[in-house]
Amino acid sequence: MEEMKVVLATSNRGKVEEIRRILEPFRFEIIVPEEKLRVEEKGNTFLENALIKAKAYFDRFGLPALADDSGLEVEALGGYPGVFSSRFHSLDFGGIEEVRDSEDEANVRKLLRLMKGEKNRRARFVCWVVLYTGYGGVFGYGECRGTIADSPRGEKGFGYDPVFVPEGFSRTMAEIEPEEKDSISHRGKALRNLIRTLERCRI
Amino acid sequence: MEEMKVVLATSNRGKVEEIRRILEPFRFEIIVPEEKLRVEEKGNTFLENALIKAKAYFDRFGLPALADDSGLEVEALGGYPGVFSSRFHSLDFGGIEEVRDSEDEANVRKLLRLMKGEKNRRARFVCWVVLYTGYGGVFGYGECRGTIADSPRGEKGFGYDPVFVPEGFSRTMAEIEPEEKDSISHRGKALRNLIRTLERCRI
Repeated sequence: MEEMKVVLATSNRGKVEEIRRILEPFRFEIIVPEEKLRVEEKGNTFLENALIKAKAYFDRFGLPALADDSGLEVEALGGYPGVFSSRFHSLDFGGIEEVRDSEDEANVRKLLRLMKGEKNRRARFVCWVVLYTGYGGVFGYGECRGTIADSPRGEKGFGYDPVFVPEGFSRTMAEIEPEEKDSISHRGKALRNLIRTLERCRI
Repeated sequence: MEEMKVVLATSNRGKVEEIRRILEPFRFEIIVPEEKLRVEEKGNTFLENALIKAKAYFDRFGLPALADDSGLEVEALGGYPGVFSSRFHSLDFGGIEEVRDSEDEANVRKLLRLMKGEKNRRARFVCWVVLYTGYGGVFGYGECRGTIADSPRGEKGFGYDPVFVPEGFSRTMAEIEPEEKDSISHRGKALRNLIRTLERCRI
């Protein structure tokens, strides 16, 4: 059977690397376009945002497109930053945070500021992936529960990884080896659940 | 290959009949539960609502669940009734309409009242279907463009069918034979697009 060509609907290098790694065992030929599309993520949910991105790449490149929308939900912040995770620093909620080094760093700094002294540090990473094929598609969901650390630790991963400690671990997500991260991460689970859906629905 | 057992996440008899007919050529064993679940459709989009319904039936019956969320979008009403199509009569928008005979009849009466004298009668039926398999699923989208008639005609179908004239037809959707309706309807297209997605994504 031929490999299925899939264009990745993201230009986030951390996501590209993870998705490539996680899908390695499966029969996809993954294409990462050089052109970065500006897509407005105006949906109210992760699923809607992933669909908006996948559709934009499908329309542009004429190939099945795989998009990911993911974020961090912190219990003590009523689920924030949620769908706003990647632009949390610029959100009025909790006050705007200056970007010095990178957006990731500003987001983490804001989160730690809001969580200072907070006892309830429970949080979860959630991820929705959509493979859009034109008027239809497949999706998968995954989550990873854990707690927010007091300060950033580790150099691996990206986003909020340095301040997220997965359940059953003492290391942060940024201190865990890539393969081990994939086996417990929200993105790893979401992609494997998408694959499982296809395996389950052979008609 | 065995047939795939699928529970229908609807108790709308019109939908059940159509879905059974449209999926007849495919390898599904369709189960219509006697128990009707009360599901609050609190999503902002058809896709979210279909997912909410499919999830509820999956959780209750432990089987892949197929849900449909569909509606009528009228251009002159700014896209209303949209996601509110089935309870349009009870909506503040346009004034509440008394239910005499059935909800369908009250919805149609309200629509015709709001469209009285309106020159722009363009509208479309849209449908999103979701087959949820637990942490993942498949979806399909379909639409059918047409115009709103001046008065109801025809006894077939359900919902807004008696006042919807599909493009290229002079008959309303309720005057068209079932098989012909399926070949042009939003629901027919959405279900066939779901099937096509599965056929395209054999990995």
